[in-house]
Amino acid sequence: MPHFRMEYSANLEAHVDMTALCGHVRQVILSTGLFETGAVRVRAFKADSWSIADDLMQNAFLDMEFRIGKGRSAEDRKQAGETIFAAVSEFLKERFETPHFALSLEIREIDAELSWKKNAIHPRLRGN
Amino acid sequence: MPHFRMEYSANLEAHVDMTALCGHVRQVILSTGLFETGAVRVRAFKADSWSIADDLMQNAFLDMEFRIGKGRSAEDRKQAGETIFAAVSEFLKERFETPHFALSLEIREIDAELSWKKNAIHPRLRGN
Amino acid sequence: MPHFRMEYSANLEAHVDMTALCGHVRQVILSTGLFETGAVRVRAFKADSWSIADDLMQNAFLDMEFRIGKGRSAEDRKQAGETIFAAVSEFLKERFETPHFALSLEIREIDAELSWKKNAIHPRLRGN
Repeated sequence: MPHFRMEYSANLEAHVDMTALCGHVRQVILSTGLFETGAVRVRAFKADSWSIADDLMQNAFLDMEFRIGKGRSAEDRKQAGETIFAAVSEFLKERFETPHFALSLEIREIDAELSWKKNAIHPRLRGN
Repeated sequence: MPHFRMEYSANLEAHVDMTALCGHVRQVILSTGLFETGAVRVRAFKADSWSIADDLMQNAFLDMEFRIGKGRSAEDRKQAGETIFAAVSEFLKERFETPHFALSLEIREIDAELSWKKNAIHPRLRGN
Repeated sequence: MPHFRMEYSANLEAHVDMTALCGHVRQVILSTGLFETGAVRVRAFKADSWSIADDLMQNAFLDMEFRIGKGRSAEDRKQAGETIFAAVSEFLKERFETPHFALSLEIREIDAELSWKKNAIHPRLRGN
């Protein structure tokens, strides 16, 4: 944790550099100061099939889920969500110039009692 | 929201038109009368690798998650789930004629306090 | 249920046989004695794009979610998670010899009131 996953309709590929977006989100997450560098995992999954709203071919979506460990304040969670959502909205501003795009984000907390992790990146980065 | 995501084993592709299924689920969701057209996002993701039950090559699955905003009654949620599950079961009835298929659905609610959305489709459809 | 899903960065493909890992996890899940054979669905999804930690090209992740029906004891859940996490860690031990890999697992319970299922595999296996 934190885990940031995106799902998107494949018709976004012609317009959005998803690797660049992943990198941008990673930087924005780190800029909040709430998360350790070695823990941040941003990724994106392309939907093979979809049907959105009135089913026009141009309709597209990007849906994001941010899973973070429990223990942060409600204010910190809210602030992190707003910061990330604003950054992604700005990154995708050309998409919002069409009447065919929907963006969404949900934050979900991970229960430490029911999660496990092992991270070989932390020692490298903590040692710097 | 509402977000409807499907995951399936790639061996279903030879038997099921996933784009048609996405479109059908979208229509069933709208038929419940509980959701706004511009908000409905149905999508499907093909698993690259899998291992199911006794690991026969023919074994296949389709697993669905329906995420909806909080605030609907327990009865409405239950009714929506039953309606959608029945419709998908009917759509896939040939799959159930084999002893190799498992279907599942879970509804999960989205906390408005920890979610964000921006939708350029709504203005177009609300203006009609 | 139980549903076991994995997400991973595509750069793991050169090093990990994901189908073999799915099969191994299935066997480990069954070895706990807590789940019925016909219900186990393990699958994996490759991320198209990602950005991890300090964004080195070699950085890789595998994130797992195990969704199980409510009703098991906290101890059973904990034990199942530890057993599976240890088995996957062992399977991937060469990955941990690099300072570029992060593994994670979260268990989540499924509310019976908000879930539906239909399984044509059960009758075949129960009849054996």
